[in-house]
Amino acid sequence: MSGILYGVGLGPGDPGLITVKSSRLISGAKVIAYPSLAGGKSFARAIAADLISPQAEEIVMDVPMTVERAPAQAAYDIGAKSIAAALDRGDDVICLCEGDPFFYGSFMYLYARLAADYQVEVVPGVTSITACAARAGMPLAARNERLTVLPGPLPAAELRARIEGAESVVIMKVGRHLPKIRAVIAELNLTEKAAYIERASLPDELVCPLAQAPEKAPYFSMIILTKGADPWL
Amino acid sequence: MSGILYGVGLGPGDPGLITVKSSRLISGAKVIAYPSLAGGKSFARAIAADLISPQAEEIVMDVPMTVERAPAQAAYDIGAKSIAAALDRGDDVICLCEGDPFFYGSFMYLYARLAADYQVEVVPGVTSITACAARAGMPLAARNERLTVLPGPLPAAELRARIEGAESVVIMKVGRHLPKIRAVIAELNLTEKAAYIERASLPDELVCPLAQAPEKAPYFSMIILTKGADPWL
Ligand SMILES: C[S@@+](CC[C@H](N)C(=O)[O-])C[C@H]1O[C@@H](n2cnc3c(N)ncnc32)[C@H](O)[C@@H]1O
Ligand SMILES: C[S@@+](CC[C@H](N)C(=O)[O-])C[C@H]1O[C@@H](n2cnc3c(N)ncnc32)[C@H](O)[C@@H]1O
Repeated sequence: MSGILYGVGLGPGDPGLITVKSSRLISGAKVIAYPSLAGGKSFARAIAADLISPQAEEIVMDVPMTVERAPAQAAYDIGAKSIAAALDRGDDVICLCEGDPFFYGSFMYLYARLAADYQVEVVPGVTSITACAARAGMPLAARNERLTVLPGPLPAAELRARIEGAESVVIMKVGRHLPKIRAVIAELNLTEKAAYIERASLPDELVCPLAQAPEKAPYFSMIILTKGADPWL
Repeated sequence: MSGILYGVGLGPGDPGLITVKSSRLISGAKVIAYPSLAGGKSFARAIAADLISPQAEEIVMDVPMTVERAPAQAAYDIGAKSIAAALDRGDDVICLCEGDPFFYGSFMYLYARLAADYQVEVVPGVTSITACAARAGMPLAARNERLTVLPGPLPAAELRARIEGAESVVIMKVGRHLPKIRAVIAELNLTEKAAYIERASLPDELVCPLAQAPEKAPYFSMIILTKGADPWL
């Protein structure tokens, strides 16, 4: 009997935001797997650190941060092979995923490689968007409102068109795209309706109006823009 | 010293999807509050039932399901008064919220009434969108893809226009709007790309291609549509 691959969401950073189900799976894991970006430390592993048994085998996928896809694909190919080997011997594998596994998460690349041949269960987690909304005190959507999630790397013209046609907007992956995004929002006269949130739920979290955002944003940052005046009263 | 109002996310239904932080807050609560729709049982209370102390005081907000807003507003006005009274005596109040409190959640109505005068902390939860995506095996978004969340009650023409311009789409609050939504998606030739999910993570969950969805959908149902061929490989 093959083992089961679990993709477990960990939430945005505070270990208290891990679900009870993910906690149990991690504590009991014989084999865990996680991506580590560009040779650095793994954020996912750091969130779950206190739950991981010292005896657990760790499969680390070293994912290069390049614009071309091939190097990252190669890293997931290798990772999928190591995971398959553990599943073949009958061990379950717990793959650690920052936030939610299927919301801009790299777990989908393992899912695509392994779901046809193995039993895979995705355990959802708290996403960064609701964690950031909570910290900014900004409800994302109510009643019949629409919510649009946009990645910051999109070209300025596309961001502009998408923000114009939207109600509530969340912009992910801000990082080095902050100046471009800030300019688009200013052109649309929406700066006053936007908040900037960095490293939500972590000890060094920063939450402020977009107008007061720092010059440089880290990768783990987001902008939330709600157009309604007081839409939730 | 006034107490603190906590809006705690409970996830989509499976008590295992409650976060560690929300669990602790609920178990230790002297006063809990929650909405109950149209005189029925409270779904939020049912999710958290095993964690609630028998000694806890319960503030129930009986919210009528009407199209006009005034009756619901009146229910939140009364609820906010009872909550304020508990906070004034120095008790913390734990408000139970299905899914995430700020994602189409009624907690925002209490937040709007109480955040100016009391300390309010929102504890994010797993939303129904990632829970449904997990159960359907459909990653919501990768890389530079956009995600659009639409409420099912929107008029057919608006749904159509929004779905046409979108990449990944989640349609919430399906319920009695299922025939209208199904027709719009069929007109756009996208039925094959859509899944129907009802009561995700609960024992009576249903997940199927949209083409096989039942005639009648309950309130707790959703449609996920991803246009990419295999966008996550
Ligand atoms: C590759 S995506 C992963 C999203 C994750 N799977 C989730 O469910 O939130 C990375 C982006 O998520 C956002 N993000 C993740 N954690 C965050 C946090 N704690 N604070 C602010 N933004 C965060 C940032 O926009 C970051 O660039
Ligand atoms: C008022 S909204 C509340 C959303 C909730 N706050 C959240 O974070 O998911 C209610 C809608 O959420 C969706 N929903 C909530 N729980 C669900 C579940 N377990 N399965 C499917 N859909 C669900 C349905 O579309 C439902 O009509």
